[in-house]
This record gives sequence, C-alpha cells and structure tokens, in this order.
Amino acid sequence: MSLKFDLIATDGNARRGRVHTAHGDFETPAFMAVGTAATVKALTMDMVRDTGTQVILGNTYHLMMRPGGDLVEQMGGLHKFGGWHGPILTDSGGFQVMSLSNLVKMREEGVEFTSHIDGGIKHFLRPEDSVHIQHQLDSNITMVLDECLHLPTTRERAEKNVDMVARWARRSKDAFIDRDGYGIFGIVQGADYPDLRAKSARQLTEIGFDGYAIGGLAVGEPQETMFDMIATVTPHLPADKPRYLMGVGTPLDILGAVERGVDMFDCVMPTRAGRTAQAFTRHGTMNMKNAKFRDDTAPLDDKCGCPACKLSRAYIHHLVKCNEILGAMLLTQHNLWFYQDLMRDIRRSIENGTFAEFKAEFIKNYTGK
Amino acid sequence: MSLKFDLIATDGNARRGRVHTAHGDFETPAFMAVGTAATVKALTMDMVRDTGTQVILGNTYHLMMRPGGDLVEQMGGLHKFGGWHGPILTDSGGFQVMSLSNLVKMREEGVEFTSHIDGGIKHFLRPEDSVHIQHQLDSNITMVLDECLHLPTTRERAEKNVDMVARWARRSKDAFIDRDGYGIFGIVQGADYPDLRAKSARQLTEIGFDGYAIGGLAVGEPQETMFDMIATVTPHLPADKPRYLMGVGTPLDILGAVERGVDMFDCVMPTRAGRTAQAFTRHGTMNMKNAKFRDDTAPLDDKCGCPACKLSRAYIHHLVKCNEILGAMLLTQHNLWFYQDLMRDIRRSIENGTFAEFKAEFIKNYTGK
Repeated sequence: MSLKFDLIATDGNARRGRVHTAHGDFETPAFMAVGTAATVKALTMDMVRDTGTQVILGNTYHLMMRPGGDLVEQMGGLHKFGGWHGPILTDSGGFQVMSLSNLVKMREEGVEFTSHIDGGIKHFLRPEDSVHIQHQLDSNITMVLDECLHLPTTRERAEKNVDMVARWARRSKDAFIDRDGYGIFGIVQGADYPDLRAKSARQLTEIGFDGYAIGGLAVGEPQETMFDMIATVTPHLPADKPRYLMGVGTPLDILGAVERGVDMFDCVMPTRAGRTAQAFTRHGTMNMKNAKFRDDTAPLDDKCGCPACKLSRAYIHHLVKCNEILGAMLLTQHNLWFYQDLMRDIRRSIENGTFAEFKAEFIKNYTGK
Repeated sequence: MSLKFDLIATDGNARRGRVHTAHGDFETPAFMAVGTAATVKALTMDMVRDTGTQVILGNTYHLMMRPGGDLVEQMGGLHKFGGWHGPILTDSGGFQVMSLSNLVKMREEGVEFTSHIDGGIKHFLRPEDSVHIQHQLDSNITMVLDECLHLPTTRERAEKNVDMVARWARRSKDAFIDRDGYGIFGIVQGADYPDLRAKSARQLTEIGFDGYAIGGLAVGEPQETMFDMIATVTPHLPADKPRYLMGVGTPLDILGAVERGVDMFDCVMPTRAGRTAQAFTRHGTMNMKNAKFRDDTAPLDDKCGCPACKLSRAYIHHLVKCNEILGAMLLTQHNLWFYQDLMRDIRRSIENGTFAEFKAEFIKNYTGK
C-alpha cells in the first residue's frame, strides 16, 4: 500500500497520527474542508491554507458533471486546476447520487441517474468509473463507490446493501491504480445494525485498504446511534490505518468520534454556515443577522486569530444585512479557522494525554452547561 | 489647508504627485477602489491592498442608510469599522441621490429624497449634513454636496446648477472641520458648456479647496466631450492641488484624462466587471462565460502577477459557469490589480517623461489597432 500512516500517540481510544501523501502530509485527527467544485466556497486557496486546513475534499459527483474528469485530467489534475497543492481526498459520487440526483436505478453493475446540472442526461456510474474519474482528478485518496442508505431502513435492505458494498469495494480496489503517495479507502456501511456494521468492517478489512471510512451516518439518526455505530466498527478496523467518518459534523460530533477512534472528518457545516450568517465560537453558534450585534464592538470570538476577528461583530452584521459577499467570505474563513483550531487543540490534547479534560472543558464552554 | 499635495513631476499636462493624509500617503495619478458599503465588493481588505490600491472610496449615500453615520462614528470611523487603515475618500451622496433614490425635491436648502433601502422614509440632505456624515465616517477627503445633472441639459438649467453648486460648496466648506491630514474637495459642474465649466472652476477656486473634482461627466456623453470638458477645466484649477475626475472610467478614459492633467479616479468598472465574469487584460476585456475558455490553460493575462493569474482561464471559466463566489473574488481582484498596474505604469512613464509613448503602446495593445 502506498499511503503511509503513522500512529503517533493514543489517549484512550483517541488517536494522534499523520498521513503522508504525494502532495504532503496531514496531521490527524484532521478536518477536511469541503471543496465541492474545485473551490472551497467563498475562499481563495490562500485563505483556506491560512485557516490551518491541510487537506481538502473534492466531490466527484459535481466534478464529473462540471467541468468533467477528462477536462480536469487535461488541465493536469485537481491540484493544479484549483491551485490547492496539498493533499486532496475525493468522495466517490455515491452519496450525491443518492442525495442530489434523480436516482433512476441501482443495479449490481452500477447506478443509473440523471442530474439537473446537465439537463437530465442519463448517467451510469460503476465502481470502476468512479475510481477512474478520481484517478483523472489525481486525488490522493480515492473513495470506493458505495450505496448510502437512508435511515431508518429494514434489516433485509441493510444486509443486501452491506454485501453489495463489499463487492463494489473489491471492484473499486481492483480498478485502482496504485502509486506512491496515493491510496484508496473502503467504506463501512450497515445502517444502524451493529452486527451488519461489524460484518461490513470485516469484509472490507479482508479486501484490505489504505484507510477505512464509516459511511451512512449523520443522515438524521440520533447522535447516540452514530456514536454507538462508531464504537461498534472501530474495534474491527486495523489500528495502523486511518479512519474517516464521512460528512461529520458538529464540534461535539467530532469530539465524540475522536474519543471513539476516528481520525478524519469532513463536513459542509463550517463553510455552509458561513454563507448563511452563522458564526461558530467557543461559546456556541451566533446568528449574525441578529439585530443585537448592530453595535457590538467585540470580535466574533476574542480567542480567534482569523482576519474576521480583527473586525467587530457590528461590521460582520452590517455585511450580512447588506448581502455583501465579504460577509460570506469572512464568516466562512472564521468558521473553518474555528474548526481547525479545534482539531489542533484535539491533537495537542491527545499528545499530552489530556483529551478527556479538553473535551469536557470544550463542551462546558460550547454548551454553557 | 491640511491636506498636503506634492507635485513631483510633469510630462506635458500629465502630472505625477503624492497626497499626504492622516492615514498615509497615496501616489497620483491614483485609482481609488470603490468600497461602497465599507467593503470593496468580493474582496477582503488584504486582497485590496495586494492589488496595489492605496486609497479607497466610500459612498456616503449607502453608508448613511446602512449602517448610518452615527453607528460608524460610534465604531471609531470607517477605517476601523471596515479594517482599511489607509486613506479614504468619501463622496457626498449627491450622485446616488440622483441615480439611486427617488428624488423628491431639489431645493436651495438641500435635497429631499426617499430610498428603497429603508422602505421609503423621507430624507433631507443639506450640504452641512453631508459634510457632517463624512466627518462621522472619519473620511480623509470629504466631497462637497453637489447636484449632478443628466446630460444633455439646457443652458438655463446648467447655469442655475453651477451657481447653486458654488453656494453649496461654500456652505460645505464652512461646515467642514479642518484637521491635519484631512481635506475637502470642491466639485466643478457645468454640464457640457465650456464657459459654464470654466465659471464653475473659477467660483470654486475662489472659495479655495484642498482639491478639485470634475463631476457630472461619464454620464453617457461621448468620450470626446468628456475630454474637452476636462481640457477646458484644468487650466482654471491651481497646479498645486489634486484634481479628481469622478466616476471614471475605462483604461482609455483614464489615459486621456491623465494626459489632460487629472490626478485621481474612481470607478466601479473593475470591481463590477469582476462580478459579471469580465476580465480586463492588456489586450482588452474577455467574457469568461465564453465556452472558448473551457480548456484554455493560459492565465487571464500572462504579464499579471495576481493570484488569479496563477490559475488557468479554464478554471476561472469553470467557477463562473458554476456561479461560484470565488469566480467573482478572483476576477475582481485581477481587474483591480490590472487597474493598479496601469496606474503604476502611468506614474512611472510620467516620471520618465515617456507618458505619450506609454499611452500609445498601451492603446495599441488594448485595442489591437
């Protein structure tokens, strides 16, 4: 396997590690900024880097539609195309096929769907196609194509899903072209059935991947269910490979998942919130549309070092009220900065063996309880 | 007078100078980035500074509506509020009252209008009010309230306008609170009547200002008319004060105005164009929506040093097609960078006594003729 992972320290089940890719390293636990269409929305790549972000995620579904895998390949890959020269992970497109497209049919061979983006042309995506497109994108970490179920679902449906996911994972791995500093991750499914989650983890481990994702969570189930599924899965995963909880989550989700042995995260939350006037702070979130910020001279968070926090809440409120693009830019950068500060603090606390204390203190400040 | 201006060099009628303000100096000929509502749209102030911009313009009309002069004053002025610590010039609000508001009545005392921004409340703006609001904003350069006529207009209307503008200029100057590094500019009007333009210039010079603007141009008249009016006015203005052509313009407008002795400019063109997919280059403008850029690996302008020009036209095209905010950000910064490169080249050519050659060469490249 060509993607190296160092496990540097542990604190309970929490892990402190480092992933080495052909485009540089990233420290874990890591939060990946979501860069859907070859851009982390409302930020330049310099602004992304300034937040402490070390790895970004690209969405294969969006990129295969616009501008297309062939074009990105012709342009020299996603790093060069979008100007992010650090590590990039791409998802497989499977989740967006389920959530964004008009799914026509799921078959053993692959998934048939139409998309509003290109006016309803019929697409067929096989595991091999997804891996090929991710290769064209020059993604450092390729994700296998999977099928993500809505929760709740029947046991029968979940059983079928787990077995097909394993067959697709095998086909994905076979299609993957191994290179130094590049890798492919399997994705554990199994809905909220602990035994199916364990089975899925074992099936994927048998195939053997550079890392293991936990998919199909944070799709509306209670946080406790999500934590239970993580705790069920991680003991079945090899300790020397990174673990990635897909699409998660709130700061408290991340803390709970790190506690249960997860190393990597991605979520639209900080960036999307930034475009809808929400600010993350150590004391919880704030809606910057709120009139109470009109003459508030304080920064968003007085412990934050981001450019927005050199300005006042009153100014951010003003930008939001006037629908100024700069409002989205500053809030997005602030939120991502906040997430990366959190990850840095998590990493430091694991190194120091003080993760539990850090988590308790953070939650106390964040929730006020 | 408390705003110092050094005339460093001349080349024909073109002038190379420096304006000293309480918030630093700026070199002339200068292009001021338009920062309407305490933000240069789609850019952080760091991004603005990186373009070479030394002075920005705030719109009193927008700022008096949102967030209001009282609030900006309470927040410590516009520099602190918006995080731009260099020189700021504010307009008087007069132009926007004419172009954006529902003008109710123009009276000797002032102008009555309603605005969509605050739901149609009736406002009354006197010259003294405009100066007061600009004082609250802590603007380094205050503009007198004037009345800007639509062209064409009758001689009778233009005569009345010129005389009222002089009376309002006197009232504005009387209301201005003089401080070190702050100044107030008069605005020459007179439509397209050369003798009225000359009369207006003389009237304002008699009152005495820190600088003189030429207003009421670039409102739809032919470029030749604009150049004629500038050439008519500048001989009547004192050589030791800066001259500002309001709301102008294209690169070719600027070159023609510099040639006729203008020192300062502002225009929404580079920033607005950046939000509508237009790119300025040495070879003219490009519409980045155009499908021909889909796989164009070249940068917007291969001589440009801006961050967008480290990326490909194909990438900018992709962002524009996907309506990504980053498209507006990168194009806005590129366009402003292009304008500031032009101003720097203009300044250098005046210093070297090669302005005419530079202008001819630029026009040849820009127009392809």
